[in-house]
Amino acid sequence: MPTATGRKASIAENLAAMLGRQIAGGVLRAGDKLPSLRALAQLHGYAKNTVVAAFELLVSRGLVEARRGSGFYVLAQRPAAGLAVGEGAAPLQRAMDVVWLMREQLKTQPDALALGDGFPPIGWLADMRLDRYHQKVVRTGLGALFRYGSRMGYAPLRDSLVRKLGMFGLEVSSQQLLLTQGANDALDLVIRHWVTPGTTVLVDDPGYYLLFGKLQLAGARVLGVPRQADGPDVQALERLLQTERPRLFFTQSLAHNPTGSDLSAAKAYRILQLAAQQQMLVVENDPLADFKPTTATRLSVLNQLTNTIYIGSFSKSFSAALRVGFIACHPDLASDLADLRSLIHVSGSEYCERMVDVMLREGQYERHLVRLRGRLGQATAQALDWMDRQGCEVFARSEQSLYLWAAFPGCEDSAQLASALLARQVTMAPGRVFSLDSSATSRWSRCNVGAMQSPRLDAAMAPWRAAPG
Amino acid sequence: MPTATGRKASIAENLAAMLGRQIAGGVLRAGDKLPSLRALAQLHGYAKNTVVAAFELLVSRGLVEARRGSGFYVLAQRPAAGLAVGEGAAPLQRAMDVVWLMREQLKTQPDALALGDGFPPIGWLADMRLDRYHQKVVRTGLGALFRYGSRMGYAPLRDSLVRKLGMFGLEVSSQQLLLTQGANDALDLVIRHWVTPGTTVLVDDPGYYLLFGKLQLAGARVLGVPRQADGPDVQALERLLQTERPRLFFTQSLAHNPTGSDLSAAKAYRILQLAAQQQMLVVENDPLADFKPTTATRLSVLNQLTNTIYIGSFSKSFSAALRVGFIACHPDLASDLADLRSLIHVSGSEYCERMVDVMLREGQYERHLVRLRGRLGQATAQALDWMDRQGCEVFARSEQSLYLWAAFPGCEDSAQLASALLARQVTMAPGRVFSLDSSATSRWSRCNVGAMQSPRLDAAMAPWRAAPG
Repeated sequence: MPTATGRKASIAENLAAMLGRQIAGGVLRAGDKLPSLRALAQLHGYAKNTVVAAFELLVSRGLVEARRGSGFYVLAQRPAAGLAVGEGAAPLQRAMDVVWLMREQLKTQPDALALGDGFPPIGWLADMRLDRYHQKVVRTGLGALFRYGSRMGYAPLRDSLVRKLGMFGLEVSSQQLLLTQGANDALDLVIRHWVTPGTTVLVDDPGYYLLFGKLQLAGARVLGVPRQADGPDVQALERLLQTERPRLFFTQSLAHNPTGSDLSAAKAYRILQLAAQQQMLVVENDPLADFKPTTATRLSVLNQLTNTIYIGSFSKSFSAALRVGFIACHPDLASDLADLRSLIHVSGSEYCERMVDVMLREGQYERHLVRLRGRLGQATAQALDWMDRQGCEVFARSEQSLYLWAAFPGCEDSAQLASALLARQVTMAPGRVFSLDSSATSRWSRCNVGAMQSPRLDAAMAPWRAAPG
Repeated sequence: MPTATGRKASIAENLAAMLGRQIAGGVLRAGDKLPSLRALAQLHGYAKNTVVAAFELLVSRGLVEARRGSGFYVLAQRPAAGLAVGEGAAPLQRAMDVVWLMREQLKTQPDALALGDGFPPIGWLADMRLDRYHQKVVRTGLGALFRYGSRMGYAPLRDSLVRKLGMFGLEVSSQQLLLTQGANDALDLVIRHWVTPGTTVLVDDPGYYLLFGKLQLAGARVLGVPRQADGPDVQALERLLQTERPRLFFTQSLAHNPTGSDLSAAKAYRILQLAAQQQMLVVENDPLADFKPTTATRLSVLNQLTNTIYIGSFSKSFSAALRVGFIACHPDLASDLADLRSLIHVSGSEYCERMVDVMLREGQYERHLVRLRGRLGQATAQALDWMDRQGCEVFARSEQSLYLWAAFPGCEDSAQLASALLARQVTMAPGRVFSLDSSATSRWSRCNVGAMQSPRLDAAMAPWRAAPG
């Protein structure tokens, strides 16, 4: 049972952490006065002593200073330390660092050229606009849609997915499919099922920062497998498997975020061998599946989900406003995850699930995918060409990739490049956002090929351009 | 770093736990043969030794027996122990017990009279059928809806909610409102923000079983505040506050699930006093707000969210297939919770959020609520009248309540009553489902007044009917 003193200390710690996050995130800036003791006490219903204790913690951390008779003021901020520091902090706080980092680094401005964007150009999705399929959704019987969705998700959509995955060579039954509220919800479910504080998990490094944040939130011990141009570094993976005995490996085989790299067949085979030997579960996240040929190398296809979990999404090929994704895995695990989802969410939105099903069943859908891949292929080729003219180093050269991972000539710290570009109305995603150790300097940037066809890009990039070859 | 032996043990434990849950849930029944060692090893990619270890664990727990040369067989199941037992089990497993219990106890049959249902009769919601408002949703600009929703949720809906909550006397700004994927997602966010393993929290007892499960999943130390006909037992609350120093109190003030009771103004005032003194945050879940007069007593209205968090939903007044709910709280906390939600889900479904906003802005909406309350009032009066004729003891007599909490004459164990009724095609929700200690016998049942107007009820209940008064 916590003592009264211990409890006050923990409330003070929470309050200090909250204020610390506001300082780290720039909500409170150097020179700003903190809210008054009385105001904070009243707002949160805390005792004044507790607020004082929180202020003292902030002073001891060098974040604020007391000015006699005037109050507490924010000191000039130390450089953001990100995920790597904060070992002593609570998982929630460490995870939140990711969100602050993301907001800071991926700041969007209405008129900016969004080179750092994670989303395809809207024009590429327009032939599957939601309004076009709306009337058909009504005809699925919306007039009778009042209750919670079903336990595993809307059955007709799961049947559609059986066919869709079959085209990838992944043979599943609908009992192996659980609908989720997007791929992020799917990752969250998998984490909550397997990860408890201290569980060792592997991730692609660089990789998906929201995944890092989710794992931090769960208290996982997160270790990075270096990403290479043809997939994870298999030697590093083997060492980590032997010494660290990880439970799970989260990886993106295709159109990897942020490097745009694809997994080679040889590496895929080796990874599955290692995973089977060491009884490690592989979680294969495939949010850009529709942007790739159906024949692309997927771990889950090779071993037919024997000890892999496959995660898919419709956010980037239809609309992220639907929030529908799915998990394909062993039927027993699908059932367990469905129970976990019932506990957390009761069900997903059948309204959204029906919309996705209508769209998947449209004849237009296959034509949409062909067009999407065509556009992407063209944009990728143009972007690679542009990068070559700039003298960029390109990490992986894919024929179709929404992202390219590039090092600009003469740029040793891509965060500085991002800052400079921001002043020229171009947003850029610097490498450190995607690094497990976000305090490390990176010369790499993630570039969205869909944003690279703008003439504004050349002008903005002029100061960094190398002599044309 | 886990040892190889330790790790095998933990995989075996997980496998045993999974099989144990299948036995507890009736997926594997007494006399069933377990899948073969080889099949399990292949399916999950486990070593055979690991599967053997899992089988041995099940034998040691008395769940299965080995038959020489034949395999492992499920033994006759011990009575379900529910939440109260399982102190030693992992939080995930304990939380899953709630789901199994729910599935077992609330089994629905297509033709059954659903007296135990948690949902209003569909006919009561029909005047707000989704198909009627569909065309208006298209006109909000679905053709441009491709990207993730906004950080706090669709701004026009948050503005609508400012007005809606204003009618309850709750004055909030849109910065205090965060949209969620239903009230369950809202509860989950609050729990993940505040609760770490060992955090002491209070709940209404009896109360909402999915909330109990979510708290178990987070590793909370969950203590019950006995529910009385006019709200929580304030003396018990005061004792718990002094001795246990809980961080949070989750409570449902209005149309309480399962008792149908409403909070009195005097108790509301006392609870807020105690919470302020002891620096406890009150989480007020109000999923049936639309079923009650706007003037009903709400904690969050009394203290204007000073140290309360208000959670609302549209699942039971429009459609649960939309999965839209919301949190109203202090703006700083709303912002923190929005960050947490970004990390977990990126955003909610703006497609669904727009539909709810269209419906709230309809002139029809106010008339719908008037009709809904009228129907509910009539059904409640008839149900109370029927219960009196049966000789039932009624826990709380509200003028409008979807649920009534009743003890049937001569019935000491409502689980037995539920079993007997199931044979007569009536599903009933026995008290133990809603009790923190689900192993305790309860004579109470939750009855849905919407299902009590059927003539089938009298026939099914005949064997338990007391002599009419």
